[in-house]
Amino acid sequence: MTHLFDEATSLVDVGNGRYRGEVGDEWSIAGVPNGGLLMGAALRGALAATGAFDPLTMTTHFLSASSPGPFDLVVDVVKQGRRFSTASVALVQEDRERSRSLITLGDLSTMSGPTVSRLQPPDVDEGIAVTGGAPVGFVRMAERFEFRVPEIFSWANDSPTGEPEIHGQIRFADGREPDLVSAPLLLDAFPPTTFQLEEVGWSPTLEMTVHFRARPAPGWCTGALEARNIVAGLFEEDGVLWDSTGTVVAMSRQLAMLPA
Amino acid sequence: MTHLFDEATSLVDVGNGRYRGEVGDEWSIAGVPNGGLLMGAALRGALAATGAFDPLTMTTHFLSASSPGPFDLVVDVVKQGRRFSTASVALVQEDRERSRSLITLGDLSTMSGPTVSRLQPPDVDEGIAVTGGAPVGFVRMAERFEFRVPEIFSWANDSPTGEPEIHGQIRFADGREPDLVSAPLLLDAFPPTTFQLEEVGWSPTLEMTVHFRARPAPGWCTGALEARNIVAGLFEEDGVLWDSTGTVVAMSRQLAMLPA
Repeated sequence: MTHLFDEATSLVDVGNGRYRGEVGDEWSIAGVPNGGLLMGAALRGALAATGAFDPLTMTTHFLSASSPGPFDLVVDVVKQGRRFSTASVALVQEDRERSRSLITLGDLSTMSGPTVSRLQPPDVDEGIAVTGGAPVGFVRMAERFEFRVPEIFSWANDSPTGEPEIHGQIRFADGREPDLVSAPLLLDAFPPTTFQLEEVGWSPTLEMTVHFRARPAPGWCTGALEARNIVAGLFEEDGVLWDSTGTVVAMSRQLAMLPA
Repeated sequence: MTHLFDEATSLVDVGNGRYRGEVGDEWSIAGVPNGGLLMGAALRGALAATGAFDPLTMTTHFLSASSPGPFDLVVDVVKQGRRFSTASVALVQEDRERSRSLITLGDLSTMSGPTVSRLQPPDVDEGIAVTGGAPVGFVRMAERFEFRVPEIFSWANDSPTGEPEIHGQIRFADGREPDLVSAPLLLDAFPPTTFQLEEVGWSPTLEMTVHFRARPAPGWCTGALEARNIVAGLFEEDGVLWDSTGTVVAMSRQLAMLPA
């Protein structure tokens, strides 16, 4: 069985560092495919072009709104190193660049050294009802995930808490297991934390950075996101994603804009 | 009077998006110019090429160790927009790319919208003795700054606390006032928080991202840095820089490696 995430991020190598893909409307919010999904496609291009095993750190700057349909990736291998490689990836639709990514890759299985983590996953009651698996208003993408969330939490958000933070568990609704390529999407699939401030609406991301820290175990992932500095309509949102064993899989930070 | 930071990051426009500069050994750690300083030079190139007023977000991937001496910047304006522009900047020495940056710029003075910050600067006792202004061991760059630090804190770090965090105040030793172009350097000028774990030595940065949130007021800046997830020798380090009025100027996150 092919899962929807893999369909939406699979690429055809058309040579000279160019790859072609197609994203369907089922990943859209108000008609715009999710940025984390497009980051997954860019990761696949960088992995293919460098032959590396894992992404380590990735930044994507979103330049113009993408739309469902075909896209081209133009991958420039900036450095092909023994331990680390770096690629620049342009995602293009209709001759217009939609996003530019800078990605450093390597092999997490060969890293060694001290391990000290201060990041513990928040407790999530496993008895909480599973929600999701259905579109919510203009958020078609909400159908792609299931959530376990311990507090008032919805894309529509009738009862904002006033605190710009969200945490809970997430998994793909079609049973696909998490991996590093899907980690940006899993982090970006939570509603913006600023919805808790009644700032509900289209919150375009200028830039999102993800550190990839461990290959996830199967099962539910736990995410915790927080916006700590909202200034003149621009906000940073930080996220951490843990796997089902409590290991930190990825850390994200984005700079985005409140709805106009 | 020309300040040393401006000398080290000033550029000559040689046309076709290329700029030339030169960095002296006075910004080095073990003979390698500081990454935050090189980010300042890349920012100047992006500001010049786009005509934008402020950087908003910047990511730099460090590809190979730079050395004191001349460098070239190759600036590619990826997007020249009405509100936001994006540039890719390659820093090259001796025909080898040392770093690649992706920078989105705009005009902070035109942004408007809600403001909510959860980030308060840590208390720093203004009676603490000012230290710095002198090289420390192989850290020649330490001569460029003055610090006010409330706890055991030094580049040599004889008394590591065991907690990977550092906070204190910083300013340029030659009286230069802070601005956004120097913010990456001011954040990167604190010793790595992992020195508190007795992991003292060369800690190369793979990638550093900085969000630029407000133009700083003159005077001391306060910085707080923390490494929350150290795994198999790779660590994230997050930093916040406030100006003398307590406003968040910049937020940084880097992915770096413990000394081998």
